[in-house]
Amino acid sequence: MEKEISQAVIRRMPRYYRYLGDLLDEGVERISSNDLSHRMHVTASQIRQDLNNFGGFGQQGYGYNVQYLYDEIGKILGVNKKHNIIVLGAGNLGQAITNYTKFEKLGFVIIALFDVDPALKGKNVRGIPILMMDELDGFCKSHSVDIAALTLPKTFAKDNAAHLVKLGIHAIWTFAHVDLDLEDRSVIVENVHLSDSLMQLSYNIAKQQHK
Amino acid sequence: MEKEISQAVIRRMPRYYRYLGDLLDEGVERISSNDLSHRMHVTASQIRQDLNNFGGFGQQGYGYNVQYLYDEIGKILGVNKKHNIIVLGAGNLGQAITNYTKFEKLGFVIIALFDVDPALKGKNVRGIPILMMDELDGFCKSHSVDIAALTLPKTFAKDNAAHLVKLGIHAIWTFAHVDLDLEDRSVIVENVHLSDSLMQLSYNIAKQQHK
Repeated sequence: MEKEISQAVIRRMPRYYRYLGDLLDEGVERISSNDLSHRMHVTASQIRQDLNNFGGFGQQGYGYNVQYLYDEIGKILGVNKKHNIIVLGAGNLGQAITNYTKFEKLGFVIIALFDVDPALKGKNVRGIPILMMDELDGFCKSHSVDIAALTLPKTFAKDNAAHLVKLGIHAIWTFAHVDLDLEDRSVIVENVHLSDSLMQLSYNIAKQQHK
Repeated sequence: MEKEISQAVIRRMPRYYRYLGDLLDEGVERISSNDLSHRMHVTASQIRQDLNNFGGFGQQGYGYNVQYLYDEIGKILGVNKKHNIIVLGAGNLGQAITNYTKFEKLGFVIIALFDVDPALKGKNVRGIPILMMDELDGFCKSHSVDIAALTLPKTFAKDNAAHLVKLGIHAIWTFAHVDLDLEDRSVIVENVHLSDSLMQLSYNIAKQQHK
């Protein structure tokens, strides 16, 4: 890719990708920006603008080729490649993520979970092993790990994040309610702040009640 | 509140709230915008601009009163009020959310879970009952429910969302990977799209590899 695409556009891409995937499932081969606009509740001009960032996928009076657009956006999002994931924390949240088979369809493959709880030793989640934390270093040496998902309490998340970077893992997907302050600024961190999302909700509730 | 505050500012508020809460835990009573800037990795001028939206909390050369600012942002975010939540779907994700006691400290109180799996009937998550889906209507009539959290597969989420609105629930927090298309546009929907977050991560990985 030559051109730098704005983060705002990038943030909208997964939603396009999801809708195009649904269209493919329905057997739709072509779609006009107007029809896509109607489905997605976004203006047609916004869609044309967004997709023009990636070159002219559409042709006037012809619409978008759904498969082609889906594949191209997939490439941009990096979901055409396989990413190996380990999950630190094999509690409910770690297991929920591991059970979410949809991720695998997007190329995100969970290869192991890690926990400190000896009661979980030797167990697995749909065949994916739960290992003990003292096995982490050895595992990372013998396996290619692209992403570490952290479903740990925040103090543990902070300590482990730095250690993971030392083990050569450069992308972290974290649910811990803390900003990981890593010295290595090249590490990619994506936060899922569930409380922030709930607060966004309560803000909108309060706002509506004031109307 | 008289003035309309932009969504961009609102989206940053939970993070301020979190940092101010941490400061309170550490016993910090006052903080300058420079010190807060250093902690949060945001420019001091951004902080002053953001917080000026809510009136002048700070005084020149004096800094912000942490407790006051925390409380005021809490009011704006609506977390000073109690919100009763029911969780639809008592699988791993539903149980993970229910176990996350931090939500309760923010006023988000889960009062029941619902599921269709008879194996879960009569069980509970740290004392919070798991009820069967056929008990939902009766429960909503006898309890005040502010928010429904959906941890269901997407087809079930769509069907149930409309039903919840009929039961008088006007705020939905959903993890289903689908946009809920509700006729009633006044219903507040907050989506947590975990796949979108993973794709954001893989985009940044791909981008870094191209550098």
